[in-house]
Amino acid sequence: MQIVTSLEELRAARRLRPAPLGLVPTMGYLHSGHISLVQRARAESESVAASIFVNPTQFGPTEDLAKYPRNLEGDLNLLEAAGTDLVWLPTPAQMYPTGYQTWVEVDGLASPLEGAMRPGHFRGVTTVVAKLFNAFQPQRAYFGQKDAQQAAVICRMARDLDFPVEIVICPTLREADGLAMSSRNSYLNTDERQAAPVLFRSLNAARAAYYAGERNAEKLRQIMTDTLIAEPLARLQYVSCADYDSLQELQEINGKILLSMAVYIGKTRLIDNFVLEN
Amino acid sequence: MQIVTSLEELRAARRLRPAPLGLVPTMGYLHSGHISLVQRARAESESVAASIFVNPTQFGPTEDLAKYPRNLEGDLNLLEAAGTDLVWLPTPAQMYPTGYQTWVEVDGLASPLEGAMRPGHFRGVTTVVAKLFNAFQPQRAYFGQKDAQQAAVICRMARDLDFPVEIVICPTLREADGLAMSSRNSYLNTDERQAAPVLFRSLNAARAAYYAGERNAEKLRQIMTDTLIAEPLARLQYVSCADYDSLQELQEINGKILLSMAVYIGKTRLIDNFVLEN
Repeated sequence: MQIVTSLEELRAARRLRPAPLGLVPTMGYLHSGHISLVQRARAESESVAASIFVNPTQFGPTEDLAKYPRNLEGDLNLLEAAGTDLVWLPTPAQMYPTGYQTWVEVDGLASPLEGAMRPGHFRGVTTVVAKLFNAFQPQRAYFGQKDAQQAAVICRMARDLDFPVEIVICPTLREADGLAMSSRNSYLNTDERQAAPVLFRSLNAARAAYYAGERNAEKLRQIMTDTLIAEPLARLQYVSCADYDSLQELQEINGKILLSMAVYIGKTRLIDNFVLEN
Repeated sequence: MQIVTSLEELRAARRLRPAPLGLVPTMGYLHSGHISLVQRARAESESVAASIFVNPTQFGPTEDLAKYPRNLEGDLNLLEAAGTDLVWLPTPAQMYPTGYQTWVEVDGLASPLEGAMRPGHFRGVTTVVAKLFNAFQPQRAYFGQKDAQQAAVICRMARDLDFPVEIVICPTLREADGLAMSSRNSYLNTDERQAAPVLFRSLNAARAAYYAGERNAEKLRQIMTDTLIAEPLARLQYVSCADYDSLQELQEINGKILLSMAVYIGKTRLIDNFVLEN
Protein backbone atom coordinates (compact mmCIF):
# COMPACT_ATOMS: atom_id res chain seq x y z
CA MET A 1 0.00 0.00 0.00
CA GLN A 2 1.41 3.33 -1.11
CA ILE A 3 0.87 6.35 1.16
CA VAL A 4 1.24 9.82 -0.34
CA THR A 5 0.85 13.31 1.06
CA SER A 6 1.30 15.91 -1.71
CA LEU A 7 -1.03 16.26 -4.68
CA GLU A 8 1.94 15.86 -7.03
CA GLU A 9 2.86 12.52 -5.42
CA LEU A 10 -0.76 11.45 -5.66
CA ARG A 11 -0.98 12.28 -9.37
CA ALA A 12 2.27 10.43 -10.06
CA ALA A 13 1.13 7.38 -8.05
CA ARG A 14 -2.30 7.47 -9.70
CA ARG A 15 -0.83 7.35 -13.19
CA LEU A 16 0.85 4.03 -12.37
CA ARG A 17 -2.34 2.33 -11.16
CA PRO A 18 -4.43 0.39 -13.66
CA ALA A 19 -8.01 1.49 -14.30
CA PRO A 20 -10.73 1.22 -13.20
CA LEU A 21 -9.82 2.84 -9.91
CA GLY A 22 -12.30 2.80 -7.04
CA LEU A 23 -12.04 5.63 -4.50
CA VAL A 24 -13.20 5.55 -0.88
CA PRO A 25 -13.09 9.09 0.56
CA THR A 26 -13.04 9.08 4.38
CA MET A 27 -12.47 11.33 7.37
CA GLY A 28 -10.54 8.52 9.10
CA TYR A 29 -11.22 6.80 12.42
CA LEU A 30 -12.33 3.93 10.26
CA HIS A 31 -14.86 1.30 11.25
CA SER A 32 -16.36 -1.73 9.52
CA GLY A 33 -18.67 0.53 7.53
CA HIS A 34 -15.72 2.22 5.85
CA ILE A 35 -13.99 -1.11 5.35
CA SER A 36 -17.08 -2.53 3.65
CA LEU A 37 -16.71 0.28 1.09
CA VAL A 38 -13.07 -0.67 0.52
CA GLN A 39 -14.04 -4.32 0.14
CA ARG A 40 -16.71 -3.46 -2.39
CA ALA A 41 -14.21 -1.32 -4.31
CA ARG A 42 -11.65 -4.13 -4.14
CA ALA A 43 -14.18 -6.62 -5.53
CA GLU A 44 -15.06 -4.51 -8.57
CA SER A 45 -11.98 -2.44 -9.44
CA GLU A 46 -8.42 -2.98 -10.64
CA SER A 47 -7.11 -0.39 -8.18
CA VAL A 48 -8.43 0.80 -4.84
CA ALA A 49 -7.62 4.19 -3.35
CA ALA A 50 -8.70 5.91 -0.16
CA SER A 51 -8.31 9.37 1.30
CA ILE A 52 -8.19 10.29 4.97
CA PHE A 53 -8.99 13.95 5.49
CA VAL A 54 -11.01 15.57 8.26
CA ASN A 55 -12.44 18.25 6.01
CA PRO A 56 -12.72 21.52 7.95
CA THR A 57 -15.11 23.17 5.49
CA GLN A 58 -17.92 20.72 6.24
CA PHE A 59 -17.89 21.51 9.97
CA GLY A 60 -19.84 24.44 11.34
CA PRO A 61 -18.20 26.87 13.78
CA THR A 62 -19.83 25.17 16.80
CA GLU A 63 -19.28 21.62 15.57
CA ASP A 64 -16.76 18.95 16.54
CA LEU A 65 -13.89 19.59 14.10
CA ALA A 66 -11.22 20.00 16.80
CA LYS A 67 -12.22 16.90 18.72
CA TYR A 68 -13.15 14.72 15.73
CA PRO A 69 -11.56 11.34 16.56
CA ARG A 70 -8.34 10.34 14.82
CA ASN A 71 -6.32 7.15 14.67
CA LEU A 72 -4.04 7.27 11.68
CA GLU A 73 -2.01 4.17 12.45
CA GLY A 74 -5.11 2.06 13.04
CA ASP A 75 -6.71 3.44 9.87
CA LEU A 76 -3.70 2.58 7.72
CA ASN A 77 -3.60 -0.96 9.12
CA LEU A 78 -7.28 -1.47 8.34
CA LEU A 79 -6.94 -0.03 4.82
CA GLU A 80 -3.92 -2.21 4.08
CA ALA A 81 -5.62 -5.34 5.39
CA ALA A 82 -8.65 -4.62 3.19
CA GLY A 83 -6.46 -4.44 0.09
CA THR A 84 -6.14 -0.70 -0.50
CA ASP A 85 -3.45 0.17 -3.05
CA LEU A 86 -3.06 3.90 -2.51
CA VAL A 87 -3.89 6.28 0.36
CA TRP A 88 -3.78 10.07 0.23
CA LEU A 89 -3.33 12.04 3.44
CA PRO A 90 -3.72 15.68 2.42
CA THR A 91 -3.39 18.49 4.96
CA PRO A 92 -5.92 21.30 5.40
CA ALA A 93 -3.30 23.81 4.21
CA GLN A 94 -2.81 21.78 1.02
CA MET A 95 -6.51 21.46 0.34
CA TYR A 96 -7.40 25.04 1.25
CA PRO A 97 -4.29 27.19 0.78
CA THR A 98 -4.34 30.93 1.48
CA GLY A 99 -6.52 32.58 -1.14
CA TYR A 100 -8.72 29.52 -1.64
CA GLN A 101 -12.13 30.72 -2.86
CA THR A 102 -13.96 28.15 -5.02
CA TRP A 103 -17.06 26.29 -3.87
CA VAL A 104 -19.29 23.62 -5.35
CA GLU A 105 -22.89 23.83 -4.22
CA VAL A 106 -25.99 21.73 -4.80
CA ASP A 107 -29.07 23.91 -4.38
CA GLY A 108 -32.24 21.96 -3.68
CA LEU A 109 -31.24 18.56 -2.31
CA ALA A 110 -28.76 20.10 0.13
CA SER A 111 -31.33 22.44 1.74
CA PRO A 112 -33.59 20.33 3.99
CA LEU A 113 -32.70 17.88 6.81
CA GLU A 114 -28.96 17.93 7.53
CA GLY A 115 -28.57 20.98 5.29
CA ALA A 116 -31.10 22.92 7.39
CA MET A 117 -29.44 21.90 10.66
CA ARG A 118 -25.86 22.31 9.48
CA PRO A 119 -25.61 25.44 7.27
CA GLY A 120 -22.67 25.19 4.88
CA HIS A 121 -22.10 21.50 5.64
CA PHE A 122 -22.93 20.20 2.19
CA ARG A 123 -21.06 23.01 0.46
CA GLY A 124 -17.99 21.71 2.29
CA VAL A 125 -18.81 18.13 1.35
CA THR A 126 -19.43 18.73 -2.35
CA THR A 127 -16.39 20.98 -2.64
CA VAL A 128 -14.00 18.48 -1.08
CA VAL A 129 -15.50 15.57 -3.01
CA ALA A 130 -15.10 17.50 -6.28
CA LYS A 131 -11.48 18.13 -5.34
CA LEU A 132 -10.96 14.45 -4.51
CA PHE A 133 -12.52 13.41 -7.81
CA ASN A 134 -10.16 15.74 -9.68
CA ALA A 135 -7.16 14.62 -7.65
CA PHE A 136 -7.76 10.86 -7.92
CA GLN A 137 -9.68 10.72 -11.22
CA PRO A 138 -11.43 7.55 -10.07
CA GLN A 139 -13.81 5.57 -12.26
CA ARG A 140 -15.97 4.78 -9.20
CA ALA A 141 -16.40 6.35 -5.78
CA TYR A 142 -17.96 4.67 -2.75
CA PHE A 143 -20.12 6.28 -0.07
CA GLY A 144 -22.27 4.89 2.74
CA GLN A 145 -26.06 4.97 2.85
CA LYS A 146 -25.73 5.94 6.54
CA ASP A 147 -25.28 9.53 5.30
CA ALA A 148 -28.30 9.32 3.03
CA GLN A 149 -28.58 12.99 2.13
CA GLN A 150 -24.84 13.23 1.53
CA ALA A 151 -25.14 10.29 -0.86
CA ALA A 152 -28.02 11.98 -2.70
CA VAL A 153 -26.20 15.32 -2.89
CA ILE A 154 -22.99 13.74 -4.18
CA CYS A 155 -24.89 11.71 -6.81
CA ARG A 156 -26.58 14.92 -7.94
CA MET A 157 -23.30 16.83 -8.08
CA ALA A 158 -21.54 14.10 -10.04
CA ARG A 159 -24.39 13.94 -12.52
CA ASP A 160 -24.90 17.70 -12.85
CA LEU A 161 -21.21 18.46 -13.31
CA ASP A 162 -20.65 15.50 -15.67
CA PHE A 163 -17.96 13.94 -13.50
CA PRO A 164 -16.89 10.73 -15.25
CA VAL A 165 -17.32 8.85 -11.98
CA GLU A 166 -19.86 6.21 -11.04
CA ILE A 167 -21.15 6.82 -7.51
CA VAL A 168 -21.72 3.60 -5.57
CA ILE A 169 -23.83 3.81 -2.41
CA CYS A 170 -23.28 0.94 0.03
CA PRO A 171 -25.56 -0.31 2.84
CA THR A 172 -25.29 1.03 6.38
CA LEU A 173 -23.38 -1.32 8.67
CA ARG A 174 -24.77 -1.75 12.17
CA GLU A 175 -23.62 -2.98 15.56
CA ALA A 176 -25.31 -6.10 16.98
CA ASP A 177 -27.95 -3.94 18.71
CA GLY A 178 -28.73 -2.00 15.54
CA LEU A 179 -26.74 1.18 16.17
CA ALA A 180 -25.46 2.45 12.81
CA MET A 181 -21.68 2.42 12.72
CA SER A 182 -20.20 5.90 12.94
CA SER A 183 -16.88 7.38 14.01
CA ARG A 184 -18.91 9.62 16.32
CA ASN A 185 -20.13 6.60 18.33
CA SER A 186 -16.75 6.81 20.05
CA TYR A 187 -18.00 9.96 21.83
CA LEU A 188 -20.69 7.96 23.70
CA ASN A 189 -20.19 6.95 27.33
CA THR A 190 -21.54 3.60 28.56
CA ASP A 191 -25.06 4.84 29.36
CA GLU A 192 -25.28 6.80 26.13
CA ARG A 193 -24.04 3.83 24.12
CA GLN A 194 -26.80 1.76 25.65
CA ALA A 195 -29.39 4.41 24.77
CA ALA A 196 -28.13 5.01 21.22
CA PRO A 197 -29.97 2.13 19.47
CA VAL A 198 -33.17 4.12 20.06
CA LEU A 199 -32.63 5.62 16.56
CA PHE A 200 -32.69 2.15 15.02
CA ARG A 201 -35.68 1.12 17.16
CA SER A 202 -37.66 4.18 16.09
CA LEU A 203 -36.89 3.52 12.41
CA ASN A 204 -37.97 -0.08 12.89
CA ALA A 205 -41.23 1.00 14.52
CA ALA A 206 -42.01 3.29 11.59
CA ARG A 207 -41.06 0.60 9.10
CA ALA A 208 -43.36 -1.90 10.80
CA ALA A 209 -46.24 0.58 10.53
CA TYR A 210 -45.36 1.22 6.88
CA TYR A 211 -45.38 -2.49 6.08
CA ALA A 212 -48.69 -2.78 7.95
CA GLY A 213 -50.07 -0.32 5.39
CA GLU A 214 -49.59 3.10 7.00
CA ARG A 215 -49.15 5.69 4.22
CA ASN A 216 -49.65 8.86 6.22
CA ALA A 217 -46.22 10.42 6.55
CA GLU A 218 -47.10 12.42 9.63
CA LYS A 219 -48.11 9.18 11.38
CA LEU A 220 -44.70 7.67 10.60
CA ARG A 221 -42.93 10.79 11.89
CA GLN A 222 -45.07 10.57 15.03
CA ILE A 223 -44.17 6.90 15.58
CA MET A 224 -40.46 7.74 15.33
CA THR A 225 -40.87 10.73 17.64
CA ASP A 226 -42.80 8.71 20.24
CA THR A 227 -40.08 6.06 20.34
CA LEU A 228 -37.32 8.66 20.61
CA ILE A 229 -38.85 10.80 23.35
CA ALA A 230 -39.34 7.69 25.48
CA GLU A 231 -35.54 7.50 25.82
CA PRO A 232 -34.42 9.96 28.55
CA LEU A 233 -30.86 10.37 27.18
CA ALA A 234 -32.12 11.22 23.68
CA ARG A 235 -32.90 14.73 22.49
CA LEU A 236 -34.62 14.79 19.13
CA GLN A 237 -33.40 17.33 16.55
CA TYR A 238 -35.58 16.25 13.64
CA VAL A 239 -37.43 13.28 12.24
CA SER A 240 -38.35 13.15 8.58
CA CYS A 241 -40.48 11.12 6.22
CA ALA A 242 -39.44 12.54 2.85
CA ASP A 243 -39.72 11.74 -0.81
CA TYR A 244 -36.59 9.76 -1.70
CA ASP A 245 -35.80 11.77 -4.83
CA SER A 246 -36.52 15.33 -3.69
CA LEU A 247 -35.97 14.90 0.09
CA GLN A 248 -39.04 17.08 0.60
CA GLU A 249 -41.32 16.21 3.53
CA LEU A 250 -44.36 14.19 2.53
CA GLN A 251 -47.96 14.17 3.66
CA GLU A 252 -49.26 11.15 1.71
CA ILE A 253 -46.76 8.46 0.78
CA ASN A 254 -46.72 7.46 -2.86
CA GLY A 255 -43.44 5.85 -3.79
CA LYS A 256 -39.91 5.48 -2.45
CA ILE A 257 -39.31 7.30 0.84
CA LEU A 258 -36.48 8.20 3.16
CA LEU A 259 -37.13 7.96 6.89
CA SER A 260 -34.39 9.86 8.67
CA MET A 261 -33.54 11.61 11.89
CA ALA A 262 -30.92 13.48 13.86
CA VAL A 263 -30.82 12.85 17.59
CA TYR A 264 -28.52 14.05 20.34
CA ILE A 265 -27.52 11.31 22.76
CA GLY A 266 -25.96 13.40 25.48
CA LYS A 267 -23.73 15.81 23.54
CA THR A 268 -23.26 13.46 20.60
CA ARG A 269 -25.30 14.07 17.48
CA LEU A 270 -26.24 10.86 15.69
CA ILE A 271 -28.12 10.34 12.42
CA ASP A 272 -29.72 7.29 10.89
CA ASN A 273 -32.15 6.39 8.11
CA PHE A 274 -34.11 3.72 6.29
CA VAL A 275 -35.15 3.75 2.65
CA LEU A 276 -38.57 2.16 2.08
CA GLU A 277 -40.24 1.22 -1.18
CA ASN A 278 -43.39 -0.91 -1.29
CA MET B 1 -13.11 16.47 -37.79
CA GLN B 2 -15.60 14.55 -35.71
CA ILE B 3 -18.77 16.35 -34.59
CA VAL B 4 -20.71 14.93 -31.65
CA THR B 5 -23.83 16.02 -29.84
CA SER B 6 -24.52 13.72 -26.86
CA LEU B 7 -22.22 13.43 -23.85
CA GLU B 8 -21.99 9.67 -24.41
CA GLU B 9 -20.77 10.21 -27.99
CA LEU B 10 -18.29 12.76 -26.71
CA ARG B 11 -16.88 10.39 -24.07
CA ALA B 12 -16.57 7.59 -26.66
CA ALA B 13 -14.87 9.92 -29.16
CA ARG B 14 -12.60 11.33 -26.47
CA ARG B 15 -11.33 7.90 -25.47
CA LEU B 16 -10.05 7.35 -29.00
CA ARG B 17 -8.03 10.59 -29.13
CA PRO B 18 -4.41 10.52 -28.05
CA ALA B 19 -3.34 12.70 -25.10
CA PRO B 20 -2.51 15.45 -24.47
CA LEU B 21 -5.81 16.94 -25.60
CA GLY B 22 -6.21 20.70 -25.85
CA LEU B 23 -9.72 22.11 -25.43
CA VAL B 24 -11.03 25.40 -26.78
CA PRO B 25 -14.44 26.15 -25.21
CA THR B 26 -16.43 28.68 -27.26
CA MET B 27 -19.89 30.19 -27.61
CA GLY B 28 -19.56 30.03 -31.38
CA TYR B 29 -19.71 32.85 -33.97
CA LEU B 30 -16.00 32.33 -34.19
CA HIS B 31 -13.49 34.98 -35.18
CA SER B 32 -9.70 35.03 -35.55
CA GLY B 33 -9.34 35.30 -31.77
CA HIS B 34 -10.98 31.93 -31.27
CA ILE B 35 -9.02 30.46 -34.14
CA SER B 36 -5.75 31.65 -32.60
CA LEU B 37 -6.64 29.53 -29.56
CA VAL B 38 -7.23 26.51 -31.78
CA GLN B 39 -3.92 27.10 -33.55
CA ARG B 40 -2.09 27.34 -30.23
CA ALA B 41 -3.75 24.11 -29.07
CA ARG B 42 -2.88 22.46 -32.39
CA ALA B 43 0.77 23.48 -32.03
CA GLU B 44 1.16 22.01 -28.53
CA SER B 45 -1.23 19.06 -28.30
CA GLU B 46 -1.74 15.64 -29.86
CA SER B 47 -5.50 16.23 -30.08
CA VAL B 48 -7.55 19.40 -30.37
CA ALA B 49 -11.15 19.67 -29.28
CA ALA B 50 -13.62 22.54 -29.24
CA SER B 51 -17.10 23.10 -27.89
CA ILE B 52 -19.74 25.44 -29.26
CA PHE B 53 -22.35 26.24 -26.64
CA VAL B 54 -24.11 29.53 -25.97
CA ASN B 55 -24.30 28.97 -22.24
CA PRO B 56 -27.60 30.34 -20.92
CA THR B 57 -26.50 30.39 -17.26
CA GLN B 58 -23.89 33.06 -17.86
CA PHE B 59 -26.40 35.52 -19.31
CA GLY B 60 -28.44 37.78 -17.04
CA PRO B 61 -32.21 38.08 -17.54
CA THR B 62 -31.83 41.39 -19.43
CA GLU B 63 -28.81 40.32 -21.47
CA ASP B 64 -28.43 39.21 -25.08
CA LEU B 65 -28.88 35.42 -24.83
CA ALA B 66 -31.71 35.24 -27.37
CA LYS B 67 -30.00 37.40 -29.96
CA TYR B 68 -26.44 36.17 -29.38
CA PRO B 69 -25.06 35.70 -32.90
CA ARG B 70 -24.82 32.18 -34.33
CA ASN B 71 -23.26 30.72 -37.45
CA LEU B 72 -22.78 27.00 -36.95
CA GLU B 73 -21.78 26.16 -40.51
CA GLY B 74 -19.20 28.93 -40.65
CA ASP B 75 -17.87 27.93 -37.23
CA LEU B 76 -17.41 24.30 -38.22
CA ASN B 77 -15.59 25.31 -41.39
CA LEU B 78 -13.21 27.51 -39.42
CA LEU B 79 -12.59 24.84 -36.79
CA GLU B 80 -11.91 22.20 -39.41
CA ALA B 81 -9.54 24.46 -41.36
CA ALA B 82 -7.62 25.19 -38.14
CA GLY B 83 -7.09 21.48 -37.51
CA THR B 84 -9.68 20.70 -34.85
CA ASP B 85 -10.16 16.96 -34.29
CA LEU B 86 -13.35 16.89 -32.27
CA VAL B 87 -16.24 19.32 -31.76
CA TRP B 88 -19.00 19.00 -29.19
CA LEU B 89 -22.32 20.76 -29.79
CA PRO B 90 -24.32 20.22 -26.60
CA THR B 91 -27.84 21.57 -26.22
CA PRO B 92 -29.04 23.63 -23.25
CA ALA B 93 -31.41 20.78 -22.28
CA GLN B 94 -28.48 18.36 -22.22
CA MET B 95 -26.29 20.64 -20.17
CA TYR B 96 -29.02 21.76 -17.77
CA PRO B 97 -31.71 19.06 -17.67
CA THR B 98 -34.80 19.44 -15.50
CA GLY B 99 -33.72 19.20 -11.86
CA TYR B 100 -30.26 20.61 -12.53
CA GLN B 101 -29.03 22.26 -9.32
CA THR B 102 -25.23 22.26 -8.98
CA TRP B 103 -23.11 25.40 -9.22
CA VAL B 104 -19.41 26.15 -9.08
CA GLU B 105 -18.60 29.56 -7.68
CA VAL B 106 -15.40 31.55 -7.19
CA ASP B 107 -15.90 34.01 -4.35
CA GLY B 108 -13.45 36.90 -4.38
CA LEU B 109 -12.09 37.22 -7.91
CA ALA B 110 -15.55 36.97 -9.44
CA SER B 111 -17.01 39.85 -7.39
CA PRO B 112 -15.64 43.12 -8.84
CA LEU B 113 -15.68 44.47 -12.42
CA GLU B 114 -17.72 42.19 -14.71
CA GLY B 115 -18.97 40.27 -11.68
CA ALA B 116 -20.39 43.46 -10.15
CA MET B 117 -22.05 44.49 -13.42
CA ARG B 118 -23.30 41.03 -14.38
CA PRO B 119 -24.57 39.23 -11.25
CA GLY B 120 -24.40 35.46 -11.68
CA HIS B 121 -22.33 35.71 -14.84
CA PHE B 122 -19.21 34.05 -13.49
CA ARG B 123 -21.21 31.41 -11.64
CA GLY B 124 -22.52 30.40 -15.07
CA VAL B 125 -19.04 30.53 -16.57
CA THR B 126 -17.30 28.48 -13.89
CA THR B 127 -20.12 25.96 -13.80
CA VAL B 128 -20.11 25.35 -17.54
CA VAL B 129 -16.32 25.26 -17.71
CA ALA B 130 -16.21 22.69 -14.88
CA LYS B 131 -18.74 20.63 -16.84
CA LEU B 132 -16.68 20.95 -20.02
CA PHE B 133 -13.52 19.92 -18.18
CA ASN B 134 -15.29 16.83 -16.84
CA ALA B 135 -16.82 16.02 -20.20
CA PHE B 136 -13.66 16.43 -22.30
CA GLN B 137 -11.00 15.64 -19.65
CA PRO B 138 -8.50 17.82 -21.49
CA GLN B 139 -4.88 18.19 -20.43
CA ARG B 140 -4.96 21.87 -21.47
CA ALA B 141 -7.69 24.43 -22.01
CA TYR B 142 -7.36 27.69 -23.91
CA PHE B 143 -9.00 31.03 -23.13
CA GLY B 144 -8.50 34.55 -24.45
CA GLN B 145 -6.99 37.42 -22.49
CA LYS B 146 -9.76 39.62 -23.94
CA ASP B 147 -11.96 38.31 -21.11
CA ALA B 148 -9.32 39.03 -18.49
CA GLN B 149 -11.42 38.48 -15.40
CA GLN B 150 -12.91 35.29 -16.85
CA ALA B 151 -9.38 34.03 -17.42
CA ALA B 152 -8.42 34.85 -13.83
CA VAL B 153 -11.57 33.26 -12.40
CA ILE B 154 -11.11 30.07 -14.45
CA CYS B 155 -7.44 29.79 -13.45
CA ARG B 156 -8.49 30.15 -9.82
CA MET B 157 -11.25 27.56 -10.15
CA ALA B 158 -8.99 25.03 -11.87
CA ARG B 159 -6.35 25.47 -9.19
CA ASP B 160 -8.73 25.49 -6.21
CA LEU B 161 -10.65 22.41 -7.37
CA ASP B 162 -7.48 20.54 -8.41
CA PHE B 163 -8.62 20.08 -12.00
CA PRO B 164 -5.79 18.24 -13.79
CA VAL B 165 -5.93 20.83 -16.57
CA GLU B 166 -3.36 23.45 -17.53
CA ILE B 167 -5.09 26.76 -18.30
CA VAL B 168 -3.47 28.61 -21.21
CA ILE B 169 -4.36 32.29 -21.64
CA CYS B 170 -3.75 33.65 -25.14
CA PRO B 171 -3.31 37.26 -26.29
CA THR B 172 -6.25 39.39 -27.40
CA LEU B 173 -6.53 39.62 -31.18
CA ARG B 174 -7.44 43.01 -32.59
CA GLU B 175 -8.80 44.50 -35.80
CA ALA B 176 -6.50 46.83 -37.77
CA ASP B 177 -7.85 49.86 -35.89
CA GLY B 178 -7.29 48.20 -32.48
CA LEU B 179 -10.83 47.04 -31.71
CA ALA B 180 -10.58 43.79 -29.73
CA MET B 181 -12.14 40.93 -31.68
CA SER B 182 -15.47 39.85 -30.20
CA SER B 183 -18.53 38.06 -31.46
CA ARG B 184 -20.52 41.01 -30.14
CA ASN B 185 -18.80 43.38 -32.59
CA SER B 186 -21.32 42.04 -35.11
CA TYR B 187 -24.01 44.03 -33.29
CA LEU B 188 -22.36 47.34 -34.22
CA ASN B 189 -23.72 49.49 -37.07
CA THR B 190 -21.31 51.44 -39.27
CA ASP B 191 -21.10 54.52 -37.05
CA GLU B 192 -20.77 52.44 -33.91
CA ARG B 193 -18.08 50.30 -35.49
CA GLN B 194 -16.16 53.45 -36.26
CA ALA B 195 -16.52 54.66 -32.68
CA ALA B 196 -15.67 51.30 -31.04
CA PRO B 197 -11.85 51.60 -31.13
CA VAL B 198 -12.23 54.28 -28.45
CA LEU B 199 -11.75 51.49 -25.87
CA PHE B 200 -8.38 50.63 -27.36
CA ARG B 201 -7.43 54.31 -27.64
CA SER B 202 -8.27 54.92 -23.99
CA LEU B 203 -6.21 51.92 -22.89
CA ASN B 204 -3.33 53.19 -25.01
CA ALA B 205 -3.57 56.62 -23.45
CA ALA B 206 -3.39 55.14 -19.96
CA ARG B 207 -0.52 52.87 -20.97
CA ALA B 208 1.42 55.81 -22.36
CA ALA B 209 0.99 57.65 -19.07
CA TYR B 210 2.04 54.52 -17.16
CA TYR B 211 5.19 54.16 -19.25
CA ALA B 212 5.87 57.86 -18.71
CA GLY B 213 5.97 57.05 -14.98
CA GLU B 214 2.42 57.65 -13.77
CA ARG B 215 1.76 55.34 -10.78
CA ASN B 216 -1.39 56.95 -9.43
CA ALA B 217 -4.20 54.54 -10.32
CA GLU B 218 -6.89 57.20 -10.15
CA LYS B 219 -4.97 59.25 -12.73
CA LEU B 220 -4.93 56.27 -15.10
CA ARG B 221 -8.67 55.72 -14.59
CA GLN B 222 -9.21 59.42 -15.28
CA ILE B 223 -7.20 59.28 -18.50
CA MET B 224 -9.28 56.33 -19.75
CA THR B 225 -12.51 58.08 -18.71
CA ASP B 226 -11.54 61.32 -20.45
CA THR B 227 -10.81 59.50 -23.69
CA LEU B 228 -14.05 57.54 -23.53
CA ILE B 229 -16.40 60.42 -22.73
CA ALA B 230 -15.00 62.35 -25.69
CA GLU B 231 -16.71 59.76 -27.94
CA PRO B 232 -20.41 60.68 -28.31
CA LEU B 233 -21.52 57.12 -29.15
CA ALA B 234 -19.78 55.65 -26.08
CA ARG B 235 -21.43 55.29 -22.68
CA LEU B 236 -18.99 54.30 -20.00
CA GLN B 237 -20.04 51.56 -17.56
CA TYR B 238 -16.77 51.24 -15.61
CA VAL B 239 -13.06 51.80 -15.94
CA SER B 240 -10.67 50.01 -13.62
CA CYS B 241 -7.03 50.06 -12.65
CA ALA B 242 -6.76 46.99 -10.46
CA ASP B 243 -4.16 44.75 -8.92
CA TYR B 244 -3.59 41.92 -11.41
CA ASP B 245 -3.79 39.14 -8.81
CA SER B 246 -6.69 40.30 -6.64
CA LEU B 247 -8.58 42.46 -9.21
CA GLN B 248 -9.12 44.99 -6.42
CA GLU B 249 -9.01 48.67 -7.36
CA LEU B 250 -5.69 50.34 -6.63
CA GLN B 251 -4.69 53.75 -5.38
CA GLU B 252 -0.90 53.51 -5.72
CA ILE B 253 0.48 51.14 -8.34
CA ASN B 254 3.09 48.70 -7.11
CA GLY B 255 3.32 45.70 -9.42
CA LYS B 256 1.38 44.03 -12.20
CA ILE B 257 -1.93 45.74 -13.00
CA LEU B 258 -5.02 45.17 -15.08
CA LEU B 259 -6.50 48.18 -16.86
CA SER B 260 -10.00 47.27 -17.93
CA MET B 261 -13.34 48.73 -18.89
CA ALA B 262 -16.87 48.05 -20.03
CA VAL B 263 -18.40 50.52 -22.46
CA TYR B 264 -21.69 50.64 -24.28
CA ILE B 265 -21.37 51.63 -27.91
CA GLY B 266 -25.01 52.21 -28.75
CA LYS B 267 -26.75 49.18 -27.27
CA THR B 268 -23.68 46.95 -27.54
CA ARG B 269 -21.63 46.34 -24.43
CA LEU B 270 -17.91 45.95 -25.16
CA ILE B 271 -15.03 45.15 -22.83
CA ASP B 272 -11.29 45.43 -23.27
CA ASN B 273 -8.15 45.40 -21.15
CA PHE B 274 -4.38 45.72 -20.98
CA VAL B 275 -2.06 44.03 -18.51
CA LEU B 276 0.89 46.23 -17.53
CA GLU B 277 4.01 45.30 -15.61
CA ASN B 278 7.04 47.60 -15.50
